[in-house]
Amino acid sequence: MAQTIEEALSPIFQQKITVYSSGRTDAGVHALNQVCHFDFEKPIAKKNWDFCWALNSKLPDSIAAKQAWYAPDDFHATLSATHKTYRYWVYVNPRPNVFLRNYAGWSRKPLDIQYLDCLAKKTIGTYDCKSLQSAGTPIINTVRTIYSAQWFQRSPHLLEFRITGNGFLKQMVRNIVGTHLFLEKHRSSFAEWERILSAKDRSAAGPVAEPQGLSLLQVYYPNELDNRCVEI
Amino acid sequence: MAQTIEEALSPIFQQKITVYSSGRTDAGVHALNQVCHFDFEKPIAKKNWDFCWALNSKLPDSIAAKQAWYAPDDFHATLSATHKTYRYWVYVNPRPNVFLRNYAGWSRKPLDIQYLDCLAKKTIGTYDCKSLQSAGTPIINTVRTIYSAQWFQRSPHLLEFRITGNGFLKQMVRNIVGTHLFLEKHRSSFAEWERILSAKDRSAAGPVAEPQGLSLLQVYYPNELDNRCVEI
Repeated sequence: MAQTIEEALSPIFQQKITVYSSGRTDAGVHALNQVCHFDFEKPIAKKNWDFCWALNSKLPDSIAAKQAWYAPDDFHATLSATHKTYRYWVYVNPRPNVFLRNYAGWSRKPLDIQYLDCLAKKTIGTYDCKSLQSAGTPIINTVRTIYSAQWFQRSPHLLEFRITGNGFLKQMVRNIVGTHLFLEKHRSSFAEWERILSAKDRSAAGPVAEPQGLSLLQVYYPNELDNRCVEI
Repeated sequence: MAQTIEEALSPIFQQKITVYSSGRTDAGVHALNQVCHFDFEKPIAKKNWDFCWALNSKLPDSIAAKQAWYAPDDFHATLSATHKTYRYWVYVNPRPNVFLRNYAGWSRKPLDIQYLDCLAKKTIGTYDCKSLQSAGTPIINTVRTIYSAQWFQRSPHLLEFRITGNGFLKQMVRNIVGTHLFLEKHRSSFAEWERILSAKDRSAAGPVAEPQGLSLLQVYYPNELDNRCVEI
């Protein structure tokens, strides 16, 4: 995504632009309010919406700029982020739904929402998330804080998992969802979830949930930084 | 769509299958509950859901069979249909919504929902719909009955037009929506709508609305026929 935006911005500013987003999203994962920043030399002549319009005209229609600000020099889309909220949708119906195929996981069998929400409550806290991290970039500090997590019925056939934390390891939300659904399927005791976390080993957890159900909903920055951003 | 389903059914029945749907939908238009019928020789060994499953495994993931019945010999998906309901979504926001781009038209400016709903009420009735028919297949009888039509706010940024009638000419719903939006844009008097209908000439009406906002919601058949259908 960052590369596509860079390619759209570079001709507008007539210089090479490097875009930093709040974090990477895997292929198939959505973002409703992703935040990016970039540095540039030439001043922006257009007003906010005209600038977004110019940018959107150069972007594929799967990416759209909704707003633009001048950020203070100490703002960094990745490094300044304090916490993020994700949601994961699961469509629950033996019959397929072609309209949700790119936006939700799919469970052909009914799911025990109360069981899942109990697991969600046990997902809140500060702990070593190593068991929930997919192999890849080695990270030294795998301790993260989950501020809130819940499973709820969004509509008759749609369950939503919503989670807010100060940071997420590689595929961590999808690993949490996949493991919750795996434990639900096997009617495992809640102690099994504790066991998985304390194992600090990815192989202890369940399978990773499909990417298309996941959406980054919101990225949060310190109020102090937000207050110093000015709409262009 | 019919051709794609034919190609999926033919190997299941090991014979050439011809599929008849309740009606054609233009490229980009959606159908939530399309009805099709076909004749076959070899009996169906599978139960309903197993049959749909076998069929879906051969269909692209943009088409899914949700249910299957044995219909009486005098049932015909196109000819037996008594009325149909369509909806049209318009996303209303200066900022783009990438998630609705394939499922809604887009108005960057606010729309006067009360004005539009007055036009909808004037769309109800039995009359010659020739002005609302796009060029193409020549049809002798262009009189149709619209049983209900309304514009309403579906969610904060989404308007819905919903219409039920005994039949629709080529691109008729999209022409109605396009003309309603055109009249709203120009704050035309309601008499203008009457003038367009009485002109019996497509060029009197407004532009055709984009296809992706349109969805066929439901097709209705006589109760008597429905009652004689049996789940396979």
